[in-house]
Amino acid sequence: MLQEMKERVCRANIQLKETGLIVLTWGNVSEIDRERGLVVIKPSGVGYEAMTADDMVVVNLKGERVEGNYAPSSDLATHLALYQAFPEIGGITHTHSRWATIFSQAGMSVPMLGTTHADSFHGDIPCTRKLTSEEIGGEYEKETGTVIIEAFANIPPMDIPGVLVNSHGPFAWGKDACKSVENAIVLEESAMMAWHTLALNKDAVFQQELADKHYFRKHGPGAYYGQKM
Amino acid sequence: MLQEMKERVCRANIQLKETGLIVLTWGNVSEIDRERGLVVIKPSGVGYEAMTADDMVVVNLKGERVEGNYAPSSDLATHLALYQAFPEIGGITHTHSRWATIFSQAGMSVPMLGTTHADSFHGDIPCTRKLTSEEIGGEYEKETGTVIIEAFANIPPMDIPGVLVNSHGPFAWGKDACKSVENAIVLEESAMMAWHTLALNKDAVFQQELADKHYFRKHGPGAYYGQKM
Amino acid sequence: MLQEMKERVCRANIQLKETGLIVLTWGNVSEIDRERGLVVIKPSGVGYEAMTADDMVVVNLKGERVEGNYAPSSDLATHLALYQAFPEIGGITHTHSRWATIFSQAGMSVPMLGTTHADSFHGDIPCTRKLTSEEIGGEYEKETGTVIIEAFANIPPMDIPGVLVNSHGPFAWGKDACKSVENAIVLEESAMMAWHTLALNKDAVFQQELADKHYFRKHGPGAYYGQKM
Amino acid sequence: MLQEMKERVCRANIQLKETGLIVLTWGNVSEIDRERGLVVIKPSGVGYEAMTADDMVVVNLKGERVEGNYAPSSDLATHLALYQAFPEIGGITHTHSRWATIFSQAGMSVPMLGTTHADSFHGDIPCTRKLTSEEIGGEYEKETGTVIIEAFANIPPMDIPGVLVNSHGPFAWGKDACKSVENAIVLEESAMMAWHTLALNKDAVFQQELADKHYFRKHGPGAYYGQKM
Repeated sequence: MLQEMKERVCRANIQLKETGLIVLTWGNVSEIDRERGLVVIKPSGVGYEAMTADDMVVVNLKGERVEGNYAPSSDLATHLALYQAFPEIGGITHTHSRWATIFSQAGMSVPMLGTTHADSFHGDIPCTRKLTSEEIGGEYEKETGTVIIEAFANIPPMDIPGVLVNSHGPFAWGKDACKSVENAIVLEESAMMAWHTLALNKDAVFQQELADKHYFRKHGPGAYYGQKM
Repeated sequence: MLQEMKERVCRANIQLKETGLIVLTWGNVSEIDRERGLVVIKPSGVGYEAMTADDMVVVNLKGERVEGNYAPSSDLATHLALYQAFPEIGGITHTHSRWATIFSQAGMSVPMLGTTHADSFHGDIPCTRKLTSEEIGGEYEKETGTVIIEAFANIPPMDIPGVLVNSHGPFAWGKDACKSVENAIVLEESAMMAWHTLALNKDAVFQQELADKHYFRKHGPGAYYGQKM
Repeated sequence: MLQEMKERVCRANIQLKETGLIVLTWGNVSEIDRERGLVVIKPSGVGYEAMTADDMVVVNLKGERVEGNYAPSSDLATHLALYQAFPEIGGITHTHSRWATIFSQAGMSVPMLGTTHADSFHGDIPCTRKLTSEEIGGEYEKETGTVIIEAFANIPPMDIPGVLVNSHGPFAWGKDACKSVENAIVLEESAMMAWHTLALNKDAVFQQELADKHYFRKHGPGAYYGQKM
Repeated sequence: MLQEMKERVCRANIQLKETGLIVLTWGNVSEIDRERGLVVIKPSGVGYEAMTADDMVVVNLKGERVEGNYAPSSDLATHLALYQAFPEIGGITHTHSRWATIFSQAGMSVPMLGTTHADSFHGDIPCTRKLTSEEIGGEYEKETGTVIIEAFANIPPMDIPGVLVNSHGPFAWGKDACKSVENAIVLEESAMMAWHTLALNKDAVFQQELADKHYFRKHGPGAYYGQKM
């Protein structure tokens, strides 16, 4: 069942390692089939070296395993909360990539300071509030989704396809698994460059017109970047 | 047509990835045949993994496609503006390499602080002014060329073969595609080292005599670095 | 004798190089067989490239060589002191990895600032006091163990499976050689991210509830991360 | 002639690239045969990819080419000046490695702040004075040797086997070519860690007793690190 999707999700997970976004098993990618109401996700705590498509876990929207030999990623409940709240998205990537995690730990958004950022994220990449003691002690992974959703109360999630969970690390998303990994890469590069830009010139500013130009050059009806299909 | 040039340009584009100057598809290299008035450039938004010489796009100086199956890089108009303004140059490289982009985002030139820099760039590597709202809303990629050309009003472009576009990233050039990639590498290393030199000693200074010595050891009639051909 | 253990220890030593934790020969891993009272450790100053399981050295708890053609790592006495003081541990890794060593040289603990850290280390990673002139002039490697043991007077060693030796570098441990390497990786990543978090926001704080949640999600009777065996 | 030495020097030059000490052609290694009064050195401006032992250049102590098809490295005169002033040394490595070059550009010595440094360098790694205009305008490469030799007026060169040339970059040396590369690696790592240690704790100090212990554990009659031959 969902063989192609499993292969896509497996490849996307392996890509986390190849691109240096993660060490050890610090990341997971999922993808949703909206029609069937099924999500394919990485198994929990399994290494990337020998992982195959058949190791992927299929769950329904309640988080119940429908297929697969392993327990799903322990972050599953966060993925499900995001799929339910953001109907536009099709894939999610979670990592502990260095620079994004540094902003998470500092409790700061990644400010939009250049076109690299604006090509994919149309504004600052927000950092959530801290979870309360009740949320941490309750359904922790689901509540991690709650604080992300709160941070996007006034932001269309496809305009800024990623977030920093306070004290934790980044989640990124996109129309499918592969695109969510790509956005996780952009988030990481943008965070690295923002850190060093601020240290070099704390008054650096970026023009809104330039943000609009770059974002809409690649997204929406007027896009002209890349190849017309 | 232009088969060797296409192979050179293709190889130079692939080198961007191999040297770590870029991630994803964040870069493009072109080369000009001045006699025929033709430019070979990377296609827009195409991955580097499976790219071959035949995927390169040939355009004339008006930017019209003369050969190739793909749309040219969306930065084509900037390349063309530079080829027209700087008759000495034969190849151009654009990237979003980390350290050069950090200086772009900070709106600061890369100061000449050592011989590594001076071996290839005979002075600070300038950062352009910001584009105006009109320029951004107009022919944006062409106007990106305009602000670069303005920054070189009093600088021979082969003396300082690269620039930082404010809030965006670096362009570098040279006598051909390959040499423009080499200068993009030097720019990146110089920016990385300048960032950390300034943080260690904000009063670091570099002697003009030493700049002249190193630059002219490698360039011009008195050069003695490398092999006599 | 102890062939499987030698292979494990050899592989763990090679992993130090593959993961970038060390350059040259700046690291060593050991493992203990508590029943037999034997320790397998890397030979001193031998390269990782051609190292095989048969090059490993077997010593007893007095540090006497029982098997092997080479002299054991010069840090052996530190390993032995830790095995004797911490009966819960089964493997030890010592490196000069960059970020952990930076905190050692600064004489500072790595503060717990995020879940990446808390997933494996339940609290700040302590930095020992400096050794006295007498300790340095005496049984230096053994006294290096002494200051580590002092730092854990009130810390269960498996709760915080690693330490920074003042002015020197990190030691990490775990239930076996492989797990000690994993903890050395976590220590390194946590140190890298703590350094940059503090520079971005010197007032960054991490909630104790979140530390507990993440640590006990992976360790102890209530753990639910990974696969049930 | 000197076939084994050429192979050693060639391998040592290639190692500069493999270990990441250099990009492009920014480095050169040489070795001296004191009995014959001959030096083998890398050719100038030649790439490392296809370099073979036969491409190495043999020169006498006046710098005259005795064998080889290429011109020698343009830094040859610096190498020769060091071989003449420091009779203990047998190999020299010059690079523009990032962190050592950053200290050179800042005009600052690399302070001894930990055992990683002290294992190979018994004290701060000095930065030379700037060359005068006369020295730059005269026999520049030879005068680069002069300022290095000045910096070692009161330092035995094998105690601190490396130096930073002000505004330029590092030279390291050792008993042969291979050992000089190893010391260039230690210099680079020590510089990287010193930079970040100082930024974390500007008052970090290192005990002289510990410096002595680590240096003499590896060097001199009482050394016990590594294998007895």
